[in-house]
Amino acid sequence: MKRIREYGMAIGSIPTGERNQITDVKGVKVGHETIDSGEVQTGVTAIIPADGNLFQNKLVAASHVFNGFGKTTGLVQVDELGTLETPILLTNTLSVGTSTTALVRYMLEQDEAIGSTTGTVNPVVGECNDMLLNDIRKLRLSEEEALSAIHNAQTDVEEGSVGAGRGMKCFGLKGGIGTSSRKLTYDHGDYTIGVLVLSNFGKLEEFRLNGNHVGVQLKDQLNGEGDAPDQGSIMMVVATDLPITSDQLKRVVKRTGNGLSRTGSFMGNGSGDVAIGFSTANRVPHSAKTLQHMAVVNENDLDEAFLAVADATEEAILNSMVKAETVTGRNQLTLHSLSNYIDNFI
Amino acid sequence: MKRIREYGMAIGSIPTGERNQITDVKGVKVGHETIDSGEVQTGVTAIIPADGNLFQNKLVAASHVFNGFGKTTGLVQVDELGTLETPILLTNTLSVGTSTTALVRYMLEQDEAIGSTTGTVNPVVGECNDMLLNDIRKLRLSEEEALSAIHNAQTDVEEGSVGAGRGMKCFGLKGGIGTSSRKLTYDHGDYTIGVLVLSNFGKLEEFRLNGNHVGVQLKDQLNGEGDAPDQGSIMMVVATDLPITSDQLKRVVKRTGNGLSRTGSFMGNGSGDVAIGFSTANRVPHSAKTLQHMAVVNENDLDEAFLAVADATEEAILNSMVKAETVTGRNQLTLHSLSNYIDNFI
Amino acid sequence: MKRIREYGMAIGSIPTGERNQITDVKGVKVGHETIDSGEVQTGVTAIIPADGNLFQNKLVAASHVFNGFGKTTGLVQVDELGTLETPILLTNTLSVGTSTTALVRYMLEQDEAIGSTTGTVNPVVGECNDMLLNDIRKLRLSEEEALSAIHNAQTDVEEGSVGAGRGMKCFGLKGGIGTSSRKLTYDHGDYTIGVLVLSNFGKLEEFRLNGNHVGVQLKDQLNGEGDAPDQGSIMMVVATDLPITSDQLKRVVKRTGNGLSRTGSFMGNGSGDVAIGFSTANRVPHSAKTLQHMAVVNENDLDEAFLAVADATEEAILNSMVKAETVTGRNQLTLHSLSNYIDNFI
Amino acid sequence: MKRIREYGMAIGSIPTGERNQITDVKGVKVGHETIDSGEVQTGVTAIIPADGNLFQNKLVAASHVFNGFGKTTGLVQVDELGTLETPILLTNTLSVGTSTTALVRYMLEQDEAIGSTTGTVNPVVGECNDMLLNDIRKLRLSEEEALSAIHNAQTDVEEGSVGAGRGMKCFGLKGGIGTSSRKLTYDHGDYTIGVLVLSNFGKLEEFRLNGNHVGVQLKDQLNGEGDAPDQGSIMMVVATDLPITSDQLKRVVKRTGNGLSRTGSFMGNGSGDVAIGFSTANRVPHSAKTLQHMAVVNENDLDEAFLAVADATEEAILNSMVKAETVTGRNQLTLHSLSNYIDNFI
Repeated sequence: MKRIREYGMAIGSIPTGERNQITDVKGVKVGHETIDSGEVQTGVTAIIPADGNLFQNKLVAASHVFNGFGKTTGLVQVDELGTLETPILLTNTLSVGTSTTALVRYMLEQDEAIGSTTGTVNPVVGECNDMLLNDIRKLRLSEEEALSAIHNAQTDVEEGSVGAGRGMKCFGLKGGIGTSSRKLTYDHGDYTIGVLVLSNFGKLEEFRLNGNHVGVQLKDQLNGEGDAPDQGSIMMVVATDLPITSDQLKRVVKRTGNGLSRTGSFMGNGSGDVAIGFSTANRVPHSAKTLQHMAVVNENDLDEAFLAVADATEEAILNSMVKAETVTGRNQLTLHSLSNYIDNFI
Repeated sequence: MKRIREYGMAIGSIPTGERNQITDVKGVKVGHETIDSGEVQTGVTAIIPADGNLFQNKLVAASHVFNGFGKTTGLVQVDELGTLETPILLTNTLSVGTSTTALVRYMLEQDEAIGSTTGTVNPVVGECNDMLLNDIRKLRLSEEEALSAIHNAQTDVEEGSVGAGRGMKCFGLKGGIGTSSRKLTYDHGDYTIGVLVLSNFGKLEEFRLNGNHVGVQLKDQLNGEGDAPDQGSIMMVVATDLPITSDQLKRVVKRTGNGLSRTGSFMGNGSGDVAIGFSTANRVPHSAKTLQHMAVVNENDLDEAFLAVADATEEAILNSMVKAETVTGRNQLTLHSLSNYIDNFI
Repeated sequence: MKRIREYGMAIGSIPTGERNQITDVKGVKVGHETIDSGEVQTGVTAIIPADGNLFQNKLVAASHVFNGFGKTTGLVQVDELGTLETPILLTNTLSVGTSTTALVRYMLEQDEAIGSTTGTVNPVVGECNDMLLNDIRKLRLSEEEALSAIHNAQTDVEEGSVGAGRGMKCFGLKGGIGTSSRKLTYDHGDYTIGVLVLSNFGKLEEFRLNGNHVGVQLKDQLNGEGDAPDQGSIMMVVATDLPITSDQLKRVVKRTGNGLSRTGSFMGNGSGDVAIGFSTANRVPHSAKTLQHMAVVNENDLDEAFLAVADATEEAILNSMVKAETVTGRNQLTLHSLSNYIDNFI
Repeated sequence: MKRIREYGMAIGSIPTGERNQITDVKGVKVGHETIDSGEVQTGVTAIIPADGNLFQNKLVAASHVFNGFGKTTGLVQVDELGTLETPILLTNTLSVGTSTTALVRYMLEQDEAIGSTTGTVNPVVGECNDMLLNDIRKLRLSEEEALSAIHNAQTDVEEGSVGAGRGMKCFGLKGGIGTSSRKLTYDHGDYTIGVLVLSNFGKLEEFRLNGNHVGVQLKDQLNGEGDAPDQGSIMMVVATDLPITSDQLKRVVKRTGNGLSRTGSFMGNGSGDVAIGFSTANRVPHSAKTLQHMAVVNENDLDEAFLAVADATEEAILNSMVKAETVTGRNQLTLHSLSNYIDNFI
């Protein structure tokens, strides 16, 4: 299946990173564990933000909740301290608990000091509700499967109906995992910013394909299939190597909403729309008796990052849709791939 | 000059109110005072949210700051108490102080108890920076002119380069005042929601006209004119008669960002992007010894309001541009009306 | 062991509820499951906010994070929607995942529609880090034990080193569960407000016993025992039957911080200080096609609730300390009961 | 009149700065302009955060609103950008507009680029309501008087019924301006943190004098005088030379609430309780094409600053009371100085 650029649609004019994936930010890896088993269509996706001991050597981080009808865990501490100290897991809503415990176990193994001679650890787990295709009440995901996603992590990101994206729905069509990246060029250096989304939101008739309001036509073609209130959600993960404070990163992370909005989202009541970002540039030691020296960009430099994130988010969402294969799940419901319809709109 | 619908462009499919203006919400009035005097091109706009003594009989209110590079005053109390107790004034950035004092004087005249036998009053004043066309350092606006805007208020809203909109710039073209409204239909009744914007934001090449990314072409046509970083701002005022709590209204008000984003805003670093909303349905008494009885919608009902606000905001912005006449101001700079170019894109 | 009032110390002058417990608010129940097993000294505490199906008939709720070095889950949705739809569990930091899953299972059993014909459910789980006395790395708590706490719930609240309080430390002494309540009297009726805390915070020499700065003397007496940085946390749960919006409740909940501060907390960097509140007065239906009618107090009426919450929080913390028995746990560490020392200060 | 330490009351055990004033932070100056004229008892106080051009060379800043029943202006931008670019003015509630304009004029004079070749400026003005002693409806304060406060700034801070403190009331007694400071000692250097308050809050019977709950007795002695609901406010300004990010400073600034609470505040409904802080250590250039290099402390180091701010705030409030002379103002109301009563409690 083709990515959205292969259909001739480029979002904005900023050049992409080499792979046009979140992993264009050096050190970032993504892994999936997919469960495709009849009425159970679900999974888990891990984003490894950097190499090495994340707990001892944290990343600058920030989050923003656009609409909080969601069960993401870990944001209280990210917001307070502006740091990330674990991989990020994405999964279905009712598997947040299991994924949290799996992530704790992973970190305990990584660092013997946690909970023994130093404090505890803050696991970050995001979610969307995949109950349309997945029998979510089964709580089928195991801790082992959550750990597999971490261990499967690699720099080449698989998109579509994989990992946490397996059962997701976007604008009445099949959603899931999508990614995109942009290069940032300043006098003081070149940087990369990448976005990965787990798309599970949107009302079919509101869908805009690169600005083209095709949702109304699609609704006619789909003839009632996929027609439901916007009860979904979207998780948006932003990675960058731009030297930046947590405050500044929070501003950057908020611009995912601009890209999201351009696709036709109105952030429906039932949609948990959440963005989480991290920078690999300035690492924060778990403890230190000395001052830390940070390089940070001037606020004026953020404009390029703002636009880049908006564009990459829009593109990542479109990638999540065109790369998602059609899936049939619970109650024999089928969600179709945008790739089946997109030729009508080119 | 024509409104955007007269060019055949309707945003979304929800029906508009009678006038397609914020004043479709009963009781709302809007007044302008425009200063058009060589290097001074500025003004003030007043939104009267309801008839009667606003201080004794407050309105449910909420605000949201998308990007806080701005000097709006009054939001601390709106956020804490969820009420509005004065008209809202919009003006240029450096005239917020004068407008605040004018609004205080207006309220002192309205109610003798303020500052005498009861507490003080919370004036709400929003702003955008019109320094490109207006010699803002002159602090030219007087308290009398600010009061005139209040006294000029009427139900028919003039749009474009008027009032606070006189000197504003939007996507490299002339911006200013625009408005739009939508009807909301529920089992429990029909309501109206309206939006008024003061547009002063955007980077020319990012402009989307009803989803059509025309900014790049426009940039060529304008040949460097209007080309500048996004140092502007947008004030978005939302009015409704939907029975709603302040919490719920805050959620509604946030969806102005969805409409704003669709026009191509990436909420630039230097842009103060702020939304303020009020509901005329549940009035809050200044003091009371009894319980108050409120009717409120279920959260699920908010989806229609969310989409309506997004659509009305996008349309209000487009109206602010096509209705704005070309203006020449400080340093002989001219900002052109979108109406001069729009025929190329229809 | 005696409660703080039995030592002749009453906090403030507002009358308490009948039991002087959070369960003075009708419908509220509290249950514990305690694990006392050598190096494992931990547990879980459940607060049942009301009878009946909480998911279909939610409670108005609000939270406030004073210091977010904590792993509480569920607040994103409480903050967005202003409702609580599950019991609240409190436990140790690394058992949040397990408790989340247990709470999900409990709710799935309560309501067959969840995840099947309607959306999912938002479990609320708070935590403190009990690693000083408890071998927290063992992740010893099971889902069954978490469910037991719910099933053990009753109106008579056991305080001290029980449930989630088993391994907690407060001002270098033994902390844990404490509770207190106040009566609110208005022209429009009588109401109750109650607080339950899980105390695990504070630096010994900062401890104030009803305003008396006894921490310095206590530090001498304890001779180095219990002397450590403030790496703890406090969870504060507020219950009331006051008719109130989520906005207003958030304001009430914030006043737990005033009572907390009076005991000598400076909300240390490593302390997750979090308050969660609910009102049983206005229930919110999961879905409804009609307007809901709410009774709400005037903001001016909140002053009595503010003071009552501050006083009840201070008293609940003191109760958590004097009612906590001395416990020896991991690494043979012993934390002593305030009841062993309090007679010196009366 | 004596400061609180001269009565033998030291708050906490951390050593104070040389003057025990906010001006112990190098570069900070404070100026007052007092209006003492019959029914008009008011004024304005200016805090100059540093020498030099504040607009071109901003300070790291942060604010926190404990209770937002207040009209402070400028916080939207401080919160977004984490910088302060003007002096801070404090005044009465209805003179915020005039003070804002005065501050704008001052800055326009300081820097010709503002509003001409670069953007505008964000004036920060805080306030409390002094209407009990001051005929606030007269809007008596002039721009010239506001400017005088700036020009009067010096390192020796006058406390009590001066400047903005002239008409203020605290716990039913006379309030006003108070200040205190603490030294911070780390392996990496010594720093100072100072607090200045404008006190105008509190219910007499809740007053705690260094933990001693003397309010009830004082209420008897005052025999009904000064007895009124808590409709006041408190402005708390924090200055430090600790190298710190805006995020970290926000955490520090929040601990003013701990000191405030210890005096007996429950942050009443009608009280605007607001803290604003700045650090002189890391200056932020208005614009720059290069990366900025910042030194920042580890989060663990913040504990000392947290406790220092709590202690200094409590002491600054007590100083504001004992240093305030008795004042008679509007309606012949007299508010008495705590210094007249304090000997009963030593």
